[in-house]
Amino acid sequence: MAHLGNGVEYGLHCLLWLARPQAGFASSRDLADLQGVSPSFLAKIFPKLEKAGVVTASDGVHGGYRLARPAGEISVLDVVDAIEGPKPLFDCQEVRGKCAVFGSAKPDWSTHGVCAVHSVMIRAEQAMRAELAKTSLAKLAETVAGKAPAGFAEQISTWLADRLESRAKTRSRANRTDSGRHTDAS
Amino acid sequence: MAHLGNGVEYGLHCLLWLARPQAGFASSRDLADLQGVSPSFLAKIFPKLEKAGVVTASDGVHGGYRLARPAGEISVLDVVDAIEGPKPLFDCQEVRGKCAVFGSAKPDWSTHGVCAVHSVMIRAEQAMRAELAKTSLAKLAETVAGKAPAGFAEQISTWLADRLESRAKTRSRANRTDSGRHTDAS
Repeated sequence: MAHLGNGVEYGLHCLLWLARPQAGFASSRDLADLQGVSPSFLAKIFPKLEKAGVVTASDGVHGGYRLARPAGEISVLDVVDAIEGPKPLFDCQEVRGKCAVFGSAKPDWSTHGVCAVHSVMIRAEQAMRAELAKTSLAKLAETVAGKAPAGFAEQISTWLADRLESRAKTRSRANRTDSGRHTDAS
Repeated sequence: MAHLGNGVEYGLHCLLWLARPQAGFASSRDLADLQGVSPSFLAKIFPKLEKAGVVTASDGVHGGYRLARPAGEISVLDVVDAIEGPKPLFDCQEVRGKCAVFGSAKPDWSTHGVCAVHSVMIRAEQAMRAELAKTSLAKLAETVAGKAPAGFAEQISTWLADRLESRAKTRSRANRTDSGRHTDAS
């Protein structure tokens, strides 16, 4: 198992579609189907991204999620932190203060300052986080787009628009059939 | 929960005692008691460190573990890898190749080279590992020793020697009482 869960990968790939200059709102269901990942799993990730201010949501048949800020201002680290939560590399248990030779009264020097082991871990964590902070969604989307042939971005836009259109038609038919229902339960 | 388990902290603190210039063999039981951590938990960690060539074991009443190499040649990364095993930061599921617009035949370009998301994660992992590799057990032990007052290293040596002595006496009495038992089941 890896340190970071699959949610980070799925979340980042979704956000790359939302980082396209031509992107509008897209539902987590459509983004899941577009990428062949579990819609129910993704449905739990987007509220985390919304809470962290990475995406913003809009209700209704044309609603869904879009980036809350310009893609150049959202780093990979922002996304990892939003999805994984405050998960440190190392959780210091202050083992140094439990030494048997201290008996019941540990001396002040034994836990003075940050533990040397913890210090190494903090430096390693900072190095990892600094690297994740270096890359923005805009930069990542640019790299991904650079690998695709001309016209691929339009294919994606068409696919998402078709899904939206199809859902709007279904909803419209349902409203005509059952004109007494006004509640949007989708 | 942190990315690295408590085993890494317990293991490193044990190894710091074994990294002292005057250190001999010490049992995982004594090292656990010295530090107030679970002996059964530590008993599962030392075989991993032995397998990775970080410590070497010796049987018998004066046996236990000692460093397999000079402390200056064992890095924090060596210990983390030994205890955590091959745990990458990120486990790429190649989401990029599952895009719905590809249908059943994904084009070659879609999975050509390393995924852009994965590349960022690899760079972050390398930065973290490089930082962990920078610090040796010798350097870490030196930092820890520098925080302790004069005479503390001797206190530790005495505590460990007393435990060994006490065990040797218990064993000797048991042998005299039951001279027919030659199997060492401790």
